[in-house]
Amino acid sequence: MERIFIERAGQFIGQEVRLMGWVQRLRALAKTTFIVLRDCSGSVQIVSPPAQVAALGMKLDDVVEIRGRVREESRSKSGFEIDLIEARILNPAAHDLPFNSSSDCSQIGMDVVLDHRPLSVRTEAVNETFHVQAAILNAFRSFLTKNHFTEIVTSKIVAGGTEGGTNLFEMKYFERTAYLSQSPQFFKEHGVAALERVFETGHVYRAEPHATSRHLTEYYSLDLEMGFIDGPEELIALERSLLAEIFELLNQRFGESIKRRSGAILPDMTRTPTWEFAECLARLKTAFGRTDLVDDLDPEGERQLCELAERECGVPAVFVLGFPLAARPFYTHPRGENGAAQSFDLLFRGLEITTGGQRLHARTTLETALRRKGMRPDDFAGHLRMFELGMPPHGGFAIGLERLTAQVLGLANVREATMYPRDRNRVTP
Amino acid sequence: MERIFIERAGQFIGQEVRLMGWVQRLRALAKTTFIVLRDCSGSVQIVSPPAQVAALGMKLDDVVEIRGRVREESRSKSGFEIDLIEARILNPAAHDLPFNSSSDCSQIGMDVVLDHRPLSVRTEAVNETFHVQAAILNAFRSFLTKNHFTEIVTSKIVAGGTEGGTNLFEMKYFERTAYLSQSPQFFKEHGVAALERVFETGHVYRAEPHATSRHLTEYYSLDLEMGFIDGPEELIALERSLLAEIFELLNQRFGESIKRRSGAILPDMTRTPTWEFAECLARLKTAFGRTDLVDDLDPEGERQLCELAERECGVPAVFVLGFPLAARPFYTHPRGENGAAQSFDLLFRGLEITTGGQRLHARTTLETALRRKGMRPDDFAGHLRMFELGMPPHGGFAIGLERLTAQVLGLANVREATMYPRDRNRVTP
Repeated sequence: MERIFIERAGQFIGQEVRLMGWVQRLRALAKTTFIVLRDCSGSVQIVSPPAQVAALGMKLDDVVEIRGRVREESRSKSGFEIDLIEARILNPAAHDLPFNSSSDCSQIGMDVVLDHRPLSVRTEAVNETFHVQAAILNAFRSFLTKNHFTEIVTSKIVAGGTEGGTNLFEMKYFERTAYLSQSPQFFKEHGVAALERVFETGHVYRAEPHATSRHLTEYYSLDLEMGFIDGPEELIALERSLLAEIFELLNQRFGESIKRRSGAILPDMTRTPTWEFAECLARLKTAFGRTDLVDDLDPEGERQLCELAERECGVPAVFVLGFPLAARPFYTHPRGENGAAQSFDLLFRGLEITTGGQRLHARTTLETALRRKGMRPDDFAGHLRMFELGMPPHGGFAIGLERLTAQVLGLANVREATMYPRDRNRVTP
Repeated sequence: MERIFIERAGQFIGQEVRLMGWVQRLRALAKTTFIVLRDCSGSVQIVSPPAQVAALGMKLDDVVEIRGRVREESRSKSGFEIDLIEARILNPAAHDLPFNSSSDCSQIGMDVVLDHRPLSVRTEAVNETFHVQAAILNAFRSFLTKNHFTEIVTSKIVAGGTEGGTNLFEMKYFERTAYLSQSPQFFKEHGVAALERVFETGHVYRAEPHATSRHLTEYYSLDLEMGFIDGPEELIALERSLLAEIFELLNQRFGESIKRRSGAILPDMTRTPTWEFAECLARLKTAFGRTDLVDDLDPEGERQLCELAERECGVPAVFVLGFPLAARPFYTHPRGENGAAQSFDLLFRGLEITTGGQRLHARTTLETALRRKGMRPDDFAGHLRMFELGMPPHGGFAIGLERLTAQVLGLANVREATMYPRDRNRVTP
């Protein structure tokens, strides 16, 4: 008999079915044993006389095969239950697990959760976290594909950094030294000269020695870059629409749970305001008396700005545009003559989840910008050459997948949204 | 005036539009200059009196902005042309380009093509190659998502290899040594214990010193793994359906061109036969007199088997099942008692594009298998622990994206299907 997914069992009322999955719950009463069986499609209650399963020594998280007859049962959420005919343990779980798939991982230490990743992903909340993450990935790619963006795959092994060589991981590459890519920045700019609109979803690497709740040495970046823009406002408009679509899909599928976990369903991102950097400093001074910020925001400032945006616009998010040029990478396009940059961050629920902006697109201005930063154009010869092959005015942005997932669900630590987080102290499992 | 995509210009007959793109063709006759302008949505012919553009010094691959009036033109493929009002060069291409976007890259040396990647991607054939690749990625993920697979993102920085440490790239990870992942094999197996059915699309790394037309040090692997299988036949059935769907979509969008470039439209992969390894050797002996193959196939043998499958089944592809166990990794499930493995390759148009199989799922058998290969279970303690958390019987496979793209289009070298190929000699651009 072919195994069927649990979600299909309701189509077999009165008939025998073969199911496989995990023991998610187990309740042995005097006259009846109840087993909740779960597979990737759903879960169902199995009902059995105790004697029929007693000899198996079945326990939580065992991997089992069930033959049983489907019975209509109006008190069950799914509308049916299974009367056991035969159960078989395909692979038992160990007796010494530190928690089980009915546990609440938020009450367990992070290291224990990560060292038992498959088990923690079988718990309800963590399971949902990674389904939300997969849905974000799918919606990101789908929106962009509809809008003339082409997915590209670019190398993560590079001869140098995009910003001059700090925080790079070094690797042995046959007879030479190479580095892990910090960003697909250069490649996606080349991609504009190739395909006009490109996106890439992939890992980036930062040899970031600090272990904070927001930083990883390896994270997954949702990158896009597009040609023929007049300024960063077009990028901001695109990101508003992109996130509005992603959030609408997430609200449809996970809305109730997002509300419970994060405090609110996801907002309509088309209402996100854009505030100039200087304006942000002024607002922080007025509302919170802050006078300490000069050329960048800090985590507290990011939270405060989201609070202000929520109050004024009903959305806990704000695009901060026009950061000081001096603090941005060499390829950043200036915004007017006052030392501001055509670059922006998106703050969402108190955390920066995007950096983006318009880039320089003429070789000569790039050379000048490099020299101004004390770097040598010769060290970027291969990259600069690409600006002579037909390079449109362009810009783009990147969203950190783990951060976005964490903010959507109200998770305190980005590691909770990372299957196998990497930081200074952790390279396993 | 807002810029519109060229594909929309036909909706503005008689009206003025603003377009931006690349000069793809340029023909200056005595009384008229014809410019073919291209953007990411299509191309269109611009018509102008010579005097109006003469001063610009416009040339192929310049990035330009065009204002013009749309005119119906039945002789044009798109049904319309643009009468130029004003042209402006946004960013010129260099005068010394080694080829241009109307060139045929197959006639240009590989190094020149790669050193000018954005320009080569603007040529017709290469452009299509990367659109085909993006379509494969999209179709792969979409098929699996429909079939209860969840996308996962796993780390590429690992403490050791999945097969015992050969061909690993070493990296400096703060105070210790780490490695680039050769395969998400372990992680996707853990993923089965977490989510039952998982897939991942991502880079894998092999410190492969040989430079062949089939090997790269970094390639993009389309990986999947699924639980509750009875044997590799279920994986083969899934891959038949998966590739059938991908190929159907590719034939719809690119069929004519695939036929022209590779010699035939893509076959119906549901007809792909499965031949046992021993049977393959016997067939090669009968049909080609080969007696030199013993425990593996060689490139010539792979081509010959595809030729036989084409003759017998009308599809140039074959699943080879039951390779000798001794030549497969420790986690491979045996196939019966005769030293064969529950693992298979898929050969397509003469090249191996997939390796897959059923894996061992009980900790004790994995420990025995490790010892038999001369490896120490203690070195895999963290991995083995995952098999005690509720691990279903499982298996999976991986498809090399660049190889699949190359075989679909009949490309001789996998580098032609790689945006930025990496091998012993190349880490730039």
